[in-house]
Amino acid sequence: MNETAPTTAKLTISSKTYSAWSLRGWLLCRLAGLEVEERKVANDAANRAELLLLSPSVLVPRLNYNGASVWDTLAIAEFLNEQFPDAGLLPEDPIARALCRSISGEIHSGFSNLRSALPMNLKVRHESFPVFSGARPDIERIESIWLDCLERFGGPFLFGEHPTMADAMYAPVATRFITYAVPLAPECEAYCRTIAEWAPMQEWIAAAKAEPEEMEELEVEF
Amino acid sequence: MNETAPTTAKLTISSKTYSAWSLRGWLLCRLAGLEVEERKVANDAANRAELLLLSPSVLVPRLNYNGASVWDTLAIAEFLNEQFPDAGLLPEDPIARALCRSISGEIHSGFSNLRSALPMNLKVRHESFPVFSGARPDIERIESIWLDCLERFGGPFLFGEHPTMADAMYAPVATRFITYAVPLAPECEAYCRTIAEWAPMQEWIAAAKAEPEEMEELEVEF
Repeated sequence: MNETAPTTAKLTISSKTYSAWSLRGWLLCRLAGLEVEERKVANDAANRAELLLLSPSVLVPRLNYNGASVWDTLAIAEFLNEQFPDAGLLPEDPIARALCRSISGEIHSGFSNLRSALPMNLKVRHESFPVFSGARPDIERIESIWLDCLERFGGPFLFGEHPTMADAMYAPVATRFITYAVPLAPECEAYCRTIAEWAPMQEWIAAAKAEPEEMEELEVEF
Repeated sequence: MNETAPTTAKLTISSKTYSAWSLRGWLLCRLAGLEVEERKVANDAANRAELLLLSPSVLVPRLNYNGASVWDTLAIAEFLNEQFPDAGLLPEDPIARALCRSISGEIHSGFSNLRSALPMNLKVRHESFPVFSGARPDIERIESIWLDCLERFGGPFLFGEHPTMADAMYAPVATRFITYAVPLAPECEAYCRTIAEWAPMQEWIAAAKAEPEEMEELEVEF
């Protein structure tokens, strides 16, 4: 890194209301302590061409920093961990770190029923949303992951006092459980509140609520 | 690491014929130079209970090594990279490394149409398999990723002379393109041959072909 000419980090995201992957990438940058200039793209058909030019995989988030172009949330997480090794994106203990990576990988590649049944939408609140029964095993598995971590590391975050990569990965799940009023074990409900009250989440949610209406027609989860 | 009492590494996998994720995890261990004792589980209903005890997320592969239990292929890749930093699981150059992680992340979380349209099956060879049109964009995106890497780093592997994490992640895609005779750009067909001729792949494929028939009823891709 050239300290005399720091690069401006740019993060390409889409809707703050609907894009769970954008939220994850943005939280990871916050965890790393990296100030980013946000580049926002709409994901509707009209803007698809622009998006194609911006993101090699038609995916957000994408981080441009220090000459690298990184897309995909886990790649961003590991890239940031390498660039900012003291930021604590991963727990220090190697065994805890392996667990942190495992549960982060699990949410990255799995839980598709949950994602389609309960799309992220930070502008609404449902009190009795019918949860598609196919999403139940996903919800139970996530509860079991959270309970295990909260018990092992004592909370309030998954790996103890400080948030890690895993909290960024599960944050959009916590917001879904709140907005869709999904009943959970009390420890898991407490964890959802921890996430909702986490300062960067408050900032993101406020920005989502201030998002113009035209952004509301976006395609949601990818 | 305690050099006086090396732990035996154990890798839990399922079918060598059908389980693309198992193949990825196994290749990653080979890349790291880690000898593993294979623990094989069938993934059908009768063995589900056993699997539940073996793997916390009902997923294979899972690696047990040095006190850590790691599941999910990307977590295994990063864990191995940390344990064996000189094995070259990732390219040395930080920008190439960021790209390697990005394309590994992309195959990890995406391409679901390709995965369901062309399930891995190392025992068959189709000469004119009807490729579901929904899988075309996935195939084109993968061609574009491969062409970009092969051009930038000169092949024969995605990041040059030596295989990396990304080759392990894309290996089951290369085998699908071969077994389903998917027409590709010549550079991509050459890459598929590189993967098929790679010594660990040859070993895995031979083991798949020798797999007993009862393993053939397994559920396939997850």
